[in-house]
Amino acid sequence: MELFFQENLLESTLEIKFSTEESRHISKVLRKKTGDTITVTNGKGLEWKGVITRLDTRNTLAKKTTTIFHKKAKSNIHIAIAPTKSNDRMEWFLEKATEIGITHITPILCNHSERRNIKSDRFEKILIGALKQSYQFHLPKLNAFTNFSDFVSSISADNKFIAHCRESNKSNLSSYNSLSKDVLILIGPEGDFSSEEVELASENDFLPIALGSQRLRTETAGIVACHTVIIKREQHNT
Amino acid sequence: MELFFQENLLESTLEIKFSTEESRHISKVLRKKTGDTITVTNGKGLEWKGVITRLDTRNTLAKKTTTIFHKKAKSNIHIAIAPTKSNDRMEWFLEKATEIGITHITPILCNHSERRNIKSDRFEKILIGALKQSYQFHLPKLNAFTNFSDFVSSISADNKFIAHCRESNKSNLSSYNSLSKDVLILIGPEGDFSSEEVELASENDFLPIALGSQRLRTETAGIVACHTVIIKREQHNT
Repeated sequence: MELFFQENLLESTLEIKFSTEESRHISKVLRKKTGDTITVTNGKGLEWKGVITRLDTRNTLAKKTTTIFHKKAKSNIHIAIAPTKSNDRMEWFLEKATEIGITHITPILCNHSERRNIKSDRFEKILIGALKQSYQFHLPKLNAFTNFSDFVSSISADNKFIAHCRESNKSNLSSYNSLSKDVLILIGPEGDFSSEEVELASENDFLPIALGSQRLRTETAGIVACHTVIIKREQHNT
Repeated sequence: MELFFQENLLESTLEIKFSTEESRHISKVLRKKTGDTITVTNGKGLEWKGVITRLDTRNTLAKKTTTIFHKKAKSNIHIAIAPTKSNDRMEWFLEKATEIGITHITPILCNHSERRNIKSDRFEKILIGALKQSYQFHLPKLNAFTNFSDFVSSISADNKFIAHCRESNKSNLSSYNSLSKDVLILIGPEGDFSSEEVELASENDFLPIALGSQRLRTETAGIVACHTVIIKREQHNT
């Protein structure tokens, strides 16, 4: 089952035109035929189904048959993370976090950040690819690259956590029972948050957490944090 | 803090000689000096500490000061997984699973497997790299590439699960309360397990499980399964 993405798609859209690249994919890779069903989302909850009315490798059209609207997750999982030195590792985080159900991502610039610039367009493409691959209908929101101190002093959430490796009195994230509400977690760069950053987070009511006993890479910490919240919510709902 | 790995290290080893590559790393990257402490593991629980007695880029020696033995995890987390078509994705699984605490990995050959050969030596190197990076002392056991049917009919564990995408009556892995005992989970290839494989697993008392509601890639499913068990055990122990 293949899912396509068109950002400006509406429930009322009667006909869709696919790009040259998508048209080629539909005819050559998926080997679809005229009359076959195709599913498209706008990443804002819409599942739009149509039948292919015209099919060639450059110009493929589909006509609406049905639409379904999928509700958003009840609460947010927001990870604010320092992009890793290796761009691959950050992209891997984006893909996996989308697959497992993150709702918001903010790349943050920290004192010890080794990467001080990102390619947002490329990041957005990875999110869309992972959304399609995992057959979901809500694209995570990718916020702009933001300075750590601006971010922590302006953002609010029901649960605010900072995952740092410095010595302090920390509980495991998995021990919190409030995670069915909105959650925001800060994940630092390879060199960890600075002591000034940890203090600023604390002044802004972020609680320090541990993510188990191992030393995790930045991108692994991001996934582990996100998945811990998902599991707690699954347990809460059963 | 850097951890080195020497497979044949014993508690009784009095002096260690580092390879040319390690010697270069110790002097050029870590910028260690004679008299500095260095930590080495054999991946079987030993934490061996010594001081550097000789240091050059080709030949570095350390003399034992203390040793600690770290106990194994009380129970196993064993993932048997079909190696992905893209080797990078499989290697990513190996790295992340080691970081978060897997104990056993078996690559399995399934009916729908697109990859029918693996490089065990390369896989082993990735496990060692991740062990060192995450500062752990027990190297996961990497078993030989095994045929699905041979594997499921011969292996035993307290909890045996199969994560497949076919329609069936499945509970989420996170709903099981028995995961503090040994756990074995089968993860299929990109094209899923065949119906014959699902049936054979069922005949051998594997329970079908879901890993949430999204469609996950093979390597993501492996990590999600492994991390779900870790979280359940963390909760069990607090």
